[in-house]
Amino acid sequence: MVAVDLGGTRMKCGLVAADGAVVHRETRPTPREAGGRAVLDALLETVVELWQKATADGHRVRAIGVVVPGIIDADNGTVVAENLAWADLPVRDALVAAVGADVPIVLAHDVRGGGYAELRQGALTGTTNSLFLPLGTGIAAAMVVDGSLVSGDGYAGELGHTRFIHGDAAELCACGQWGCLETVASAAAIARRYAARTGRTVDGAREVLELLAAGDSDAAAVWEEALTVLVDALVLYTTLVAPTRIAIGGGLVGAGETLLQPLRDGVHARLTFQREPEIVAAVLGEEAGCLGAALMAWDRVTADEESGEQPA
Amino acid sequence: MVAVDLGGTRMKCGLVAADGAVVHRETRPTPREAGGRAVLDALLETVVELWQKATADGHRVRAIGVVVPGIIDADNGTVVAENLAWADLPVRDALVAAVGADVPIVLAHDVRGGGYAELRQGALTGTTNSLFLPLGTGIAAAMVVDGSLVSGDGYAGELGHTRFIHGDAAELCACGQWGCLETVASAAAIARRYAARTGRTVDGAREVLELLAAGDSDAAAVWEEALTVLVDALVLYTTLVAPTRIAIGGGLVGAGETLLQPLRDGVHARLTFQREPEIVAAVLGEEAGCLGAALMAWDRVTADEESGEQPA
Repeated sequence: MVAVDLGGTRMKCGLVAADGAVVHRETRPTPREAGGRAVLDALLETVVELWQKATADGHRVRAIGVVVPGIIDADNGTVVAENLAWADLPVRDALVAAVGADVPIVLAHDVRGGGYAELRQGALTGTTNSLFLPLGTGIAAAMVVDGSLVSGDGYAGELGHTRFIHGDAAELCACGQWGCLETVASAAAIARRYAARTGRTVDGAREVLELLAAGDSDAAAVWEEALTVLVDALVLYTTLVAPTRIAIGGGLVGAGETLLQPLRDGVHARLTFQREPEIVAAVLGEEAGCLGAALMAWDRVTADEESGEQPA
Repeated sequence: MVAVDLGGTRMKCGLVAADGAVVHRETRPTPREAGGRAVLDALLETVVELWQKATADGHRVRAIGVVVPGIIDADNGTVVAENLAWADLPVRDALVAAVGADVPIVLAHDVRGGGYAELRQGALTGTTNSLFLPLGTGIAAAMVVDGSLVSGDGYAGELGHTRFIHGDAAELCACGQWGCLETVASAAAIARRYAARTGRTVDGAREVLELLAAGDSDAAAVWEEALTVLVDALVLYTTLVAPTRIAIGGGLVGAGETLLQPLRDGVHARLTFQREPEIVAAVLGEEAGCLGAALMAWDRVTADEESGEQPA
């Protein structure tokens, strides 16, 4: 299985066996600044080289899984992804042409790929109604309902782009809306807001967390604002979809209990009639997207085989 | 099929054929003030009498469907319903004992029952990802995802109890939270808020709408506040779950385009990257809950028969 998690800055790639074991992994740069066509060419080259490596190592490639930060039209195999400069690019056809073989190609949203991996092998194992919420450069969510990931034809799960900041405090989000969760609670927002507040640039949310641990009051204020809207978002999701477990992922979960315990306390204090979810850390880290791409592709192969065994 | 939509003030009851045709309907009072046991007794008496009527009319009762405004434990057949004074009552066992026959008994949330009817025979026919949102005395939602209603073990869909009013404007909701959608945008809230604003009691939201049509500025202000938070709620749901169609039901949809067109315009103006849903009126009106109870029960019978035809 050739699997690629194609991000705006890096491609995390792997060869993954049927049991989810990663037999090879590598990371390559995404040539985002060279434009969408260059990004697609880099993806195709990567997939072909991984395929060749798999073959050379004695493996048979059964399918290809690619996850991207974009909206996938599953019927046509086209992708819209602002972070990759892709405007409705025919990615599946390009992959088929590049590998020159008739294998299943699974294209999926990167966060849903990560959620799939957490559901199958990670923090959401055993749940049927749960949420994977990575807090990284941006915020999106993978919703698990009745045991399956909700796609909404590629549109579902944009919890990061729901409004939780109101009035004068609301900032314009990259998505064009005002006051989105992502403008306050993403790792990028925490770094940006600390810099805006203090005039000091920081090396990402990680440095803000270090300052927080050292007693910096500006870091504490920025962190508190992020926690407040995250609690709002988790209460909202719990009220609407009633998950039994929420797995927080992305760079921010590196904060561990500094993040998780206030979220648990905040949600607990706000709920009245709702069912309270467990709030835990995702466990697969940066590998989740690539692993999810591979697991989705393996499950497609299995499903195709099963349907092929039955009379049509 | 014996079907009952057991509400806090009335029971809407029916005998429904396999094709959804209602062969008999009646309405009875719910003795809510006499307590939960009296409500249950009234339900049992109603079901038994409907059963007897069906038999006398030459029909065979294949199943019983009951929808209630509460949280159903589907495994145990117990119900928690504040509006019925039911605290974890063993409703399914009581029904089995009362009818003395081994037929499937379907218990479901009344709004999900209504959503099921709208999905099968009403405004949501043909959708796989959609929302039924009745605006009545309270507000709850029936979420359709990947072609099925989302239950969340009875907890899902509480859009009416998500927070859309902030700061000093937020009122305490009956659910114990502050600023819920229901405190501003339900039919009951509109009547209550008009009365609070003007000191004049009104005969429900209907009279506020009449005053609105007559140019009353207080009615316009109360209505505008409701529309604003309803747009917020629809934008939020669209961003998170990406429905293709939203069917508004309940008493408020009697306002027709006075309600629907501002919602469409408001949602359209707010969306940026999201997929825009159709916003339409539900079509089954007050019958939706009872019809949904019957259709769920018929589908249970069909499913049981189909699974019975296959080797185990």
